[in-house]
Amino acid sequence: MYQCNKNRVKDKIETFSQFGAAGKGGVTRFSLSPEAIAARKEFSRRMAAIGAEVVTDDMANMYATIAGSDAGLPRIVMGSHADSVRNGGNYDGILGVIAAMETLETVVAEKIPHRHPLTAMIWTNEEGSLYPPAMMSSGVICGKFDKATVLASKGVFPEAGGTFGEALATSGFAGDEKNRLNARDYCAMLELHIEQGPILEAAKKQIGVVDGVVGMFNYRIRTQGQADHAGTTPMSFRKDALLAAASAIKWIHAELDTFPKDIVYTTGEIKLHPNVHTVIPDEVEFSLDVRHWDPAVLAKALETIKGIPKEFDKCPVTYKEAWSRKRCEFNRELVGLVEKNARELGYSYMIMHSGPGHDAQYVSDMLPTTMIFVPSKDGHSHCEEEFTSLDEAWAGVNVALNTVLAIDKK
Amino acid sequence: MYQCNKNRVKDKIETFSQFGAAGKGGVTRFSLSPEAIAARKEFSRRMAAIGAEVVTDDMANMYATIAGSDAGLPRIVMGSHADSVRNGGNYDGILGVIAAMETLETVVAEKIPHRHPLTAMIWTNEEGSLYPPAMMSSGVICGKFDKATVLASKGVFPEAGGTFGEALATSGFAGDEKNRLNARDYCAMLELHIEQGPILEAAKKQIGVVDGVVGMFNYRIRTQGQADHAGTTPMSFRKDALLAAASAIKWIHAELDTFPKDIVYTTGEIKLHPNVHTVIPDEVEFSLDVRHWDPAVLAKALETIKGIPKEFDKCPVTYKEAWSRKRCEFNRELVGLVEKNARELGYSYMIMHSGPGHDAQYVSDMLPTTMIFVPSKDGHSHCEEEFTSLDEAWAGVNVALNTVLAIDKK
Repeated sequence: MYQCNKNRVKDKIETFSQFGAAGKGGVTRFSLSPEAIAARKEFSRRMAAIGAEVVTDDMANMYATIAGSDAGLPRIVMGSHADSVRNGGNYDGILGVIAAMETLETVVAEKIPHRHPLTAMIWTNEEGSLYPPAMMSSGVICGKFDKATVLASKGVFPEAGGTFGEALATSGFAGDEKNRLNARDYCAMLELHIEQGPILEAAKKQIGVVDGVVGMFNYRIRTQGQADHAGTTPMSFRKDALLAAASAIKWIHAELDTFPKDIVYTTGEIKLHPNVHTVIPDEVEFSLDVRHWDPAVLAKALETIKGIPKEFDKCPVTYKEAWSRKRCEFNRELVGLVEKNARELGYSYMIMHSGPGHDAQYVSDMLPTTMIFVPSKDGHSHCEEEFTSLDEAWAGVNVALNTVLAIDKK
Repeated sequence: MYQCNKNRVKDKIETFSQFGAAGKGGVTRFSLSPEAIAARKEFSRRMAAIGAEVVTDDMANMYATIAGSDAGLPRIVMGSHADSVRNGGNYDGILGVIAAMETLETVVAEKIPHRHPLTAMIWTNEEGSLYPPAMMSSGVICGKFDKATVLASKGVFPEAGGTFGEALATSGFAGDEKNRLNARDYCAMLELHIEQGPILEAAKKQIGVVDGVVGMFNYRIRTQGQADHAGTTPMSFRKDALLAAASAIKWIHAELDTFPKDIVYTTGEIKLHPNVHTVIPDEVEFSLDVRHWDPAVLAKALETIKGIPKEFDKCPVTYKEAWSRKRCEFNRELVGLVEKNARELGYSYMIMHSGPGHDAQYVSDMLPTTMIFVPSKDGHSHCEEEFTSLDEAWAGVNVALNTVLAIDKK
């Protein structure tokens, strides 16, 4: 078994944490921002230093490739994203980029024989924080999104100059479409990522062997009341849409809590009209995000939600789908190789599903793909408290390195 | 008994509905806006036409006065406000101004003998829609608000140029402080207003004899959760502040629904953090507005709220007072005169409390004061559907006219 260099991993974590450091232990590093460009240049510099060829494609995805002994073989690619949410942490995405870099650096430094070319990647704008949607570039490359549509995406924060297309054009990182990841030049994709949840930590496992991404549906649920004056309308005359929404939320919990323990569902967003303390709310809409691995469970949950009472507290209740996605199953052979290498390296591990979406999910429709998770302290992510210890990160990179080399042998 | 002129009332309702007409049957007429200034000029023109002397005070409150037979007596004043909320109706406030104008016009046209000078008034910025707070000018005149503070009030919508003080200075309506309503020059104040609620309509009564304004308290209730990823956090690990808020709202309803039927309470505003569909909410704050006439009931309600469980759904619950006000009792003699005149005019009436605050409430600390309510169709107000029929308005003005003349006789 091979091991990567723990100090080199530490150095990269510390270095990349500087790009967009927001002063409280985390970063704000929107894709293609000056902070993200600084991170890209560091990636480029370090990859050039080990003799990798660095190119970008038309979505500014970056590919750093070292040759293998057999020039005719397709590449094995590892990577993740280098952008963050606002006031995000130092691990989400970037740790997968660091793992990819470290794998190539170790192979070069240790002169490890390998047949396939090996590529380390940065996916552009995975978070979609400044320019929605999330997983934008893997979505374009893998045919999920229309390129012209995402180029027209307008920035949602003042940091944006205009559209994503304008940011891309002036970034200096827009390259040739022919450099895109494709099924001819690449034979496998591996993404290491932090778990962003508490399961590994709670189970005291070092490695998550990810077998896929759960399916989900996202609904908008609306209650319709009557806006009247808080001081003049007797209780018996009221149609209070917020009371009805509270009843609906409690009903959803009561129903879905009878489902298997590993279903997750979230009412994270609520809109109230007119949202004035002296007026009874007449319109409330809230989001409902439901996720589960088993399509049958998800279908049953959907059926349950569609059976929500037509009225709560005299307010009609309606719903509509915002979006949904089917589960994504990663390549069984690659999942098996991750498990085998974790075991042979002596790490504790568990097979698990990913709750969040990742670039690997779109890529899995194009290439044999899988993911490796490492623990997130207290399950926190998308916040400055996000933390994965150096030992945990190092273990993950060792699994990634050995898995890539195992794929190379096939 | 005297009667005012129904056609003249109709003409004024129709004329004033044009100032700020928002195209859907209602008006947007923020205080001191061009639309409100047009209404003020119409008031001035009509009052000058009957020989009234029109002055303004330093808060731009307008006073139109006709002399009485005894120059040494203090004035009897009637009035309300001419400003509206955004997309408000054609009756809130302005109907009280119209009633005051019509009373003076009738007295002049019919040459009705009267000893006291009679004044029709417009109170500046009762709604506080563009420049908070509500009841701004009566608040300043009656010593509830500091003038310098309200002059510095910043506009909350793009229509505002800057502060209320700046709008006041350029309005052309800022007059002399010595013109303010005061306890020496005035002996009684009467405000006619639409009910803004459904009670009169439901009880099939033409006139509300208002004996005061209910007491209230306004609290902010907060639940504290933990922000985690919607896709990664098992249900058993969650602290969902919105679920806790839903539980708290249901708890409040269950508790306060055991109170006397005429208590009203409203959770009209909610703030969610981060309010993103993929994140479990970590902080929710909602408003609770509770009103009742009986101080003992209100005190018991407050005690109940202070006994809210310290935790719902693993989320700590805290509360704080935003503000509260004691009930205001109107002058008994004036209330009796309103009732007597409604009865003698042959109108159906009921004695009732006001739920909302009104300028009359602040004035009642300075002068003998009372109010007259007329019905609001379906109880609607602060919306374009707001409606009071001409017959209902006319009945209200007749009660006002005869009550003023009754006060004049005392």
